[in-house]
Amino acid sequence: MTYHTFIPEHYHNTIGWHEPVMFIDDGDTVCAETADAHGFDRHGNQPGGRPNPMTGPFYVRGADPGDVLKVAINRISMTRSSGWTFSTLAANVVDPAVVRRLPAPEKVLWIIDSDGGVARLAEPPPRLADWTVPLDPMIGCFGVAPALGQAWSTATSGPYGGNMDYRGFRAGVEVMFPVAAPGALFFLGDVHAAQGDGEIVGTGIETSAEVEFTVAVIKRKQIGWPRGETPDEIFAIGNARPLDQALQHATTEMLDWLIADHGHDAVSASHLMGMAVRYDVANVFNPNYSVACRIAKAWL
Amino acid sequence: MTYHTFIPEHYHNTIGWHEPVMFIDDGDTVCAETADAHGFDRHGNQPGGRPNPMTGPFYVRGADPGDVLKVAINRISMTRSSGWTFSTLAANVVDPAVVRRLPAPEKVLWIIDSDGGVARLAEPPPRLADWTVPLDPMIGCFGVAPALGQAWSTATSGPYGGNMDYRGFRAGVEVMFPVAAPGALFFLGDVHAAQGDGEIVGTGIETSAEVEFTVAVIKRKQIGWPRGETPDEIFAIGNARPLDQALQHATTEMLDWLIADHGHDAVSASHLMGMAVRYDVANVFNPNYSVACRIAKAWL
Amino acid sequence: MTYHTFIPEHYHNTIGWHEPVMFIDDGDTVCAETADAHGFDRHGNQPGGRPNPMTGPFYVRGADPGDVLKVAINRISMTRSSGWTFSTLAANVVDPAVVRRLPAPEKVLWIIDSDGGVARLAEPPPRLADWTVPLDPMIGCFGVAPALGQAWSTATSGPYGGNMDYRGFRAGVEVMFPVAAPGALFFLGDVHAAQGDGEIVGTGIETSAEVEFTVAVIKRKQIGWPRGETPDEIFAIGNARPLDQALQHATTEMLDWLIADHGHDAVSASHLMGMAVRYDVANVFNPNYSVACRIAKAWL
Amino acid sequence: MTYHTFIPEHYHNTIGWHEPVMFIDDGDTVCAETADAHGFDRHGNQPGGRPNPMTGPFYVRGADPGDVLKVAINRISMTRSSGWTFSTLAANVVDPAVVRRLPAPEKVLWIIDSDGGVARLAEPPPRLADWTVPLDPMIGCFGVAPALGQAWSTATSGPYGGNMDYRGFRAGVEVMFPVAAPGALFFLGDVHAAQGDGEIVGTGIETSAEVEFTVAVIKRKQIGWPRGETPDEIFAIGNARPLDQALQHATTEMLDWLIADHGHDAVSASHLMGMAVRYDVANVFNPNYSVACRIAKAWL
Repeated sequence: MTYHTFIPEHYHNTIGWHEPVMFIDDGDTVCAETADAHGFDRHGNQPGGRPNPMTGPFYVRGADPGDVLKVAINRISMTRSSGWTFSTLAANVVDPAVVRRLPAPEKVLWIIDSDGGVARLAEPPPRLADWTVPLDPMIGCFGVAPALGQAWSTATSGPYGGNMDYRGFRAGVEVMFPVAAPGALFFLGDVHAAQGDGEIVGTGIETSAEVEFTVAVIKRKQIGWPRGETPDEIFAIGNARPLDQALQHATTEMLDWLIADHGHDAVSASHLMGMAVRYDVANVFNPNYSVACRIAKAWL
Repeated sequence: MTYHTFIPEHYHNTIGWHEPVMFIDDGDTVCAETADAHGFDRHGNQPGGRPNPMTGPFYVRGADPGDVLKVAINRISMTRSSGWTFSTLAANVVDPAVVRRLPAPEKVLWIIDSDGGVARLAEPPPRLADWTVPLDPMIGCFGVAPALGQAWSTATSGPYGGNMDYRGFRAGVEVMFPVAAPGALFFLGDVHAAQGDGEIVGTGIETSAEVEFTVAVIKRKQIGWPRGETPDEIFAIGNARPLDQALQHATTEMLDWLIADHGHDAVSASHLMGMAVRYDVANVFNPNYSVACRIAKAWL
Repeated sequence: MTYHTFIPEHYHNTIGWHEPVMFIDDGDTVCAETADAHGFDRHGNQPGGRPNPMTGPFYVRGADPGDVLKVAINRISMTRSSGWTFSTLAANVVDPAVVRRLPAPEKVLWIIDSDGGVARLAEPPPRLADWTVPLDPMIGCFGVAPALGQAWSTATSGPYGGNMDYRGFRAGVEVMFPVAAPGALFFLGDVHAAQGDGEIVGTGIETSAEVEFTVAVIKRKQIGWPRGETPDEIFAIGNARPLDQALQHATTEMLDWLIADHGHDAVSASHLMGMAVRYDVANVFNPNYSVACRIAKAWL
Repeated sequence: MTYHTFIPEHYHNTIGWHEPVMFIDDGDTVCAETADAHGFDRHGNQPGGRPNPMTGPFYVRGADPGDVLKVAINRISMTRSSGWTFSTLAANVVDPAVVRRLPAPEKVLWIIDSDGGVARLAEPPPRLADWTVPLDPMIGCFGVAPALGQAWSTATSGPYGGNMDYRGFRAGVEVMFPVAAPGALFFLGDVHAAQGDGEIVGTGIETSAEVEFTVAVIKRKQIGWPRGETPDEIFAIGNARPLDQALQHATTEMLDWLIADHGHDAVSASHLMGMAVRYDVANVFNPNYSVACRIAKAWL
């Protein structure tokens, strides 16, 4: 149950079977710094490159293929007073012909006021002169090394996690990933100070951060997709295109979860899910979209 | 401001330019009965047929093509103590190969306890022996006659509304439809006693109901898709397949709304939407899926 | 076996249960004029409106719901020397961000040289100065009244046919439609002088035409989607979005066909289809896309 | 212009930045053996594992990031007399509820008669007793190392090529890949003795093979997706889900090609493509689907 502090000296633009930056034990806690999606750190330096440079990987002793790595997000703290977004809706979230009405996206500066708990545009348009956005920090991209020795760009996502850009990945959440590599090889980065559903401008408020997390290994447990748990609910993530398929994966994962761990068969799980399921559209911007299928614990 | 009561003698399985069953005025309120999705009424008789037999149409005097019909849902009351669902997840909401693991859907009976405010399975599987579902009645299918003199099956949906199966269409909501036919020709039916996101078993708890609604005509207002308003938020609906396109329609409609009525341009609207938008997956079962793009009024 | 000639006095913008313009018998042949997609006829007058004004419906005596109407396309002749297309790729057939690089579509004039068997742009850009396109006339939109008394815009398509915009619907092809209304109620129009796969500029070369067709009724035969037959192959059409689903419908229809009429079971049909199937992307422009699943008769 | 012969001693299940098995020069020809999709070689041994074990990578001297690697497929020869397929249509190519009517897929043996130029089922169902399939060998999976140091499973595909399962990748075709790694790092494998459109049973006739290919480096040429050329036509490939997006990528790539190399602007290219384009559905089975956008050279 050691507490580690980690400041990256290099970053990865893929999630893969890379050399660990630290070896940790089941139950350990790490406080790690992350750079923003374009590689800028707390000092405004740019030690990382695009896309979404990752801190890590952390080798978790005792985590083997066929296990689950559980990562509790204890805290996400902003480490600088600036962030950025893109200025227009992404081309793929509006009707195709409407793209002609949207200016090309530009990078826009935000002021992050951690004490005040809000962010604001550095140069807001008049209509948004006094507009502030409550900080609600989340991890945009994290996960474990994928199967087969693969290395996937941090622009996208898969069963191993990755760039899911889900605002539900905030402090207080436990996330489970299917382990495919010895030591799991956990990466994280791309923190957003806030973001709406879908990441529909192609960004949250992108910034550097300090993330404290605690790892746990669940031996010999088979899951197909990332799963999460909050004090109030459980959720399963699906990553794919189109959105329909991301939803199919998330729904199937929840079905399997209810059957394997909650005493249901296909029919009783269907009854429950038909009444209880809530979906979140995590992102509709990345190469793979992400959907969360949630059920309040009160239903379980 | 007349109050009308309406009990159907016949039903329609399409939303189209049909003979009005009643002529009403801007501001009038109607209390109308609806049959369930298979046409069974409060008495358990089956005066209607599949799919989703509609009560109506109501001709709203003063509503012309190019106007908007606003329908306030005042009340949705259950009119019988039984409902039904399908017994398994729909084939299209799980991974394709998983369909083999799901039994074929069967029609399952529910007991609706209006006094207790809950529904329960008539013959629950052991795992759900004491399970109750809070009643949260919603209108599954409603809308106005579509453009061009079209008549669309009540299985599906479009810019005119239709079978959107959104649990957000509950009492307390005002819904706006684009008028295409003289008198708007408003239809409603297919009430669900409760339903989760996505209508993923292919049904809510299907039952007969009594719906009280009040109509208002907004002259010369152009909207592309159904819009809604609750005390706390506004939302726009998109109906299409795949889910991505339903989301594109809903997002585009919200963009247009913010620009036309809320003083935004494309960039300020994008900033707002990027932080504020919430999506609901209304249904992923019908021929056209439905997505709601919501923004809390606090953001406006 | 009567030969009829028909010149429309009015047109329909929906395919639905409309008043027949002519009653014909099983085996009859009709030579009918059609207007172009914007309603212009052989004289350059505009008696029809958008979208895709239909000639018909023709009531085929003896055709009842549950039957199949077979329409042999005997001849498609151009009736004027002009046509038109849109000038740029449709917004939905390129990567979304690329839409900004495409000028907004404009209507462009073509010269149709029926004697020479080619069409050419009236004012070609220099790069296409001497460019000619071989005439290969096809019916863009045709079909029978859909089930349930529905009336669908001629912009789209469904199990009943409609705006499928498939270059395979040329002279020499027999097309089968599932009959849903008494008399089948056959409509046709929207002839293209030529078109590539996908109708990716949103049009073929749109023009008026004279179409000669012969009808036959096949009693009590259940088909789910339009089917076609040429001297060399059979094909099944699926209409839906996304393209994946159109392909699923077409593939399922071919599977059912092989099982019902060609002595296959699911496994032998799968073996055959896995080796023999060819797909055509008929259109990727209309509200519903269209895919043809073809098998050469040599394989049957 | 050296001629190399290569028999693999190990295989890769990812296409990535792996250690080269051979260094070759621009203009060299290689005759390489490949194992089948499950790793069985010409002798029926299984030196490779799933999925689609790759022969290579071949390091092409002089090929740098930003270049194009052109691979001419000179010859594909069968190296054993057996192959295999799956026995039923894949679950994702039929309507979802139809999956229940399809038996679970089993691996089925084929006899490959190279002298006779045909393949036949080893134990055909009665309906296909005398059925033979003409051999038309193709490469299922090939390509170059992807950007960013990524390594992708050979089950899927991307801009770098990969598991495209396109029957158009036969002898006589030249294929161009965008180079991302020094030396390009070319992999190949997963040969099919024959396959229909779409790989709709999830396989072609999977077998081992000997492939002779010749490489050429085109310096400083930017392409986004694999391109191909036959004596009669050019084609561009898009890999993605849904099929719509694969088609968007292929169409965009063809547009860019016509503009960059064939003297077109967006409008003249649109005119040409609207009339000339043919699409092939290469595969609708893999995680990313593949579409080819083709134009006959006669049109250029």
